[in-house]
Amino acid sequence: MKHGGNIYQFAQQVGCKPEEVLDFSANINPEQALDPASLLPIPFGPYADPEYTLLKQALKARYPHPDGVEIEVFNGASAAIFALLRRLQPRDLVLYAPLYVEYAKIAGQLGCTLHTIDRFADLHAEVPENSTIIFVNPSTPDGRLYAMQALLEQWRQKNCTVLVDESFLDFCSADSVADYIAEYDRLYVIKSLSKFYGCAGIRIGFILAAAEAIDALKRFEPAWKLSTFDMAYMRQALANRPYIEQTRRQTAKRRKLLRQALEDAGLFETIYPGQANFLLTQLKNDDDGYLLQERLAPSRLLIRVCDNFSGLNKSHVRFAVKDEQAIAQLAHALKAIPHNVL
Amino acid sequence: MKHGGNIYQFAQQVGCKPEEVLDFSANINPEQALDPASLLPIPFGPYADPEYTLLKQALKARYPHPDGVEIEVFNGASAAIFALLRRLQPRDLVLYAPLYVEYAKIAGQLGCTLHTIDRFADLHAEVPENSTIIFVNPSTPDGRLYAMQALLEQWRQKNCTVLVDESFLDFCSADSVADYIAEYDRLYVIKSLSKFYGCAGIRIGFILAAAEAIDALKRFEPAWKLSTFDMAYMRQALANRPYIEQTRRQTAKRRKLLRQALEDAGLFETIYPGQANFLLTQLKNDDDGYLLQERLAPSRLLIRVCDNFSGLNKSHVRFAVKDEQAIAQLAHALKAIPHNVL
Repeated sequence: MKHGGNIYQFAQQVGCKPEEVLDFSANINPEQALDPASLLPIPFGPYADPEYTLLKQALKARYPHPDGVEIEVFNGASAAIFALLRRLQPRDLVLYAPLYVEYAKIAGQLGCTLHTIDRFADLHAEVPENSTIIFVNPSTPDGRLYAMQALLEQWRQKNCTVLVDESFLDFCSADSVADYIAEYDRLYVIKSLSKFYGCAGIRIGFILAAAEAIDALKRFEPAWKLSTFDMAYMRQALANRPYIEQTRRQTAKRRKLLRQALEDAGLFETIYPGQANFLLTQLKNDDDGYLLQERLAPSRLLIRVCDNFSGLNKSHVRFAVKDEQAIAQLAHALKAIPHNVL
Repeated sequence: MKHGGNIYQFAQQVGCKPEEVLDFSANINPEQALDPASLLPIPFGPYADPEYTLLKQALKARYPHPDGVEIEVFNGASAAIFALLRRLQPRDLVLYAPLYVEYAKIAGQLGCTLHTIDRFADLHAEVPENSTIIFVNPSTPDGRLYAMQALLEQWRQKNCTVLVDESFLDFCSADSVADYIAEYDRLYVIKSLSKFYGCAGIRIGFILAAAEAIDALKRFEPAWKLSTFDMAYMRQALANRPYIEQTRRQTAKRRKLLRQALEDAGLFETIYPGQANFLLTQLKNDDDGYLLQERLAPSRLLIRVCDNFSGLNKSHVRFAVKDEQAIAQLAHALKAIPHNVL
């Protein structure tokens, strides 16, 4: 098993159905904002409105942004990042690590010069003039929430183009940097909706940026790309306002339970403070996360080894915040592991 | 109203609901291969298999292709074309017109040198050495089905990269050029599934090409892009084999009815022979298709004026093959138009 995330391979390996996997490896809210059955019937026949008017209205109502800031929708945040980096064609790309290795991979394919800053050790390290910045807030895999103002100021002084990925921000009660776009036309806010709304199978993400920047980005996008079903789903999910506070409260409560379970296990040197829907740990004695993964597999528990995050290694393991029952099963399985076998 | 296609704008303009529009402007089969309600429940929570294994198996079963030929899926054929042209970055692009103007638009944005060949007047005109070819078969907006072998031979001798769009081929009983890929590794077959399967709201299209060409193409694609719902829909649609022959028979029968209705109207100089799910016409006396569009709007009938196809003008109007009832309403409305008012 690779670092985690593919429940289909894992299910095949441990001999169960994908839906029977207790997936702690993917940062997906176990709750959803609506019952998909309530959406049908939906007109699948015709082409959707190529302007995505109603979806964009629902996004704007949920994530207000000032005049002069526009929105473009994509088939998820990862499609958005690919589209944006292809468009920007950065020469110098600055990654704040630890960071999901996929970013470095895209950068390599685009032929950028990569600069990595260790945000644990040296958050305010200098960045090259005119470089392109990628910053995730709250960060992954550790879930740390950063105050952004000083960073934004620093980047702006260097004339940087800035991509802030706020896919996990909804789990906190913090402000988006989108308000700065009006005065900083090289700032892009990227957002996945899958994590908070518990629906990685619904492929909608978006970018907020200055109107002209969005126009330039749209020029290389096809007329139709989003699923009519997914749009109907997301419009209704975005309209469910009680879900927002409920999810934040529930996630905070479950994150506490998860932290307790990890502490009680006695296997971890560090459990990082995190404010999103996951917790990063480091095993004692630099133990091997893949061995822990193997130990948990018979209980159908899938976890995320973080060696494909630059700056981390296989002693780093991330756990998503799942529901109470799943956390209890994880706690049980962890306790059964003798401390000297990893 | 622009050339057609946007039922939402049209509905607003004529004061009805989008689903009440009799849309002859979009080439979408009015039938579908399944009832979407039969698909639920679907697991929307987890990320889908990033290899799209089951969907690709269903596509391969439906559209067999030889060893060495691989498949990559996209959010519809238009997303596929954008991805492919971005990847190929052609210097010289040869378009066989009449052709949907979107191709020329993409080409302009990529900075290609455009070469247009009039396929009505001079199908076998010379093409530049090493150029990239775009050919749609059956063609749109006229629906002519071409024998491809001589063309493929001609392009190959000039060392061309060739994109054949076969989005309407399922309506005919003709062979795909995919079989040639094994011996011609610069040949790409692009296919929309929306038209034949009557579901433009389901965003899945694909490209068939040599394994190495597909690998290169995938490198710039995000890990997840397709909707889980759309994949479930399409897998079941592809498995519905009786639908194939049934759709071909039904489309042929309805196309005949449509032709009769157009002939009876007495407004058209030419009704082009077509073998897909639409018919192209030219109005008598170079009359204005937009006036015809206006005349039909009160009956909620939306038609496609083809002035944004290079090589055609606003006297060219295209009609999609719809169901018997819609065709009867069109026939009725056309007959009510006096011959001297357009």
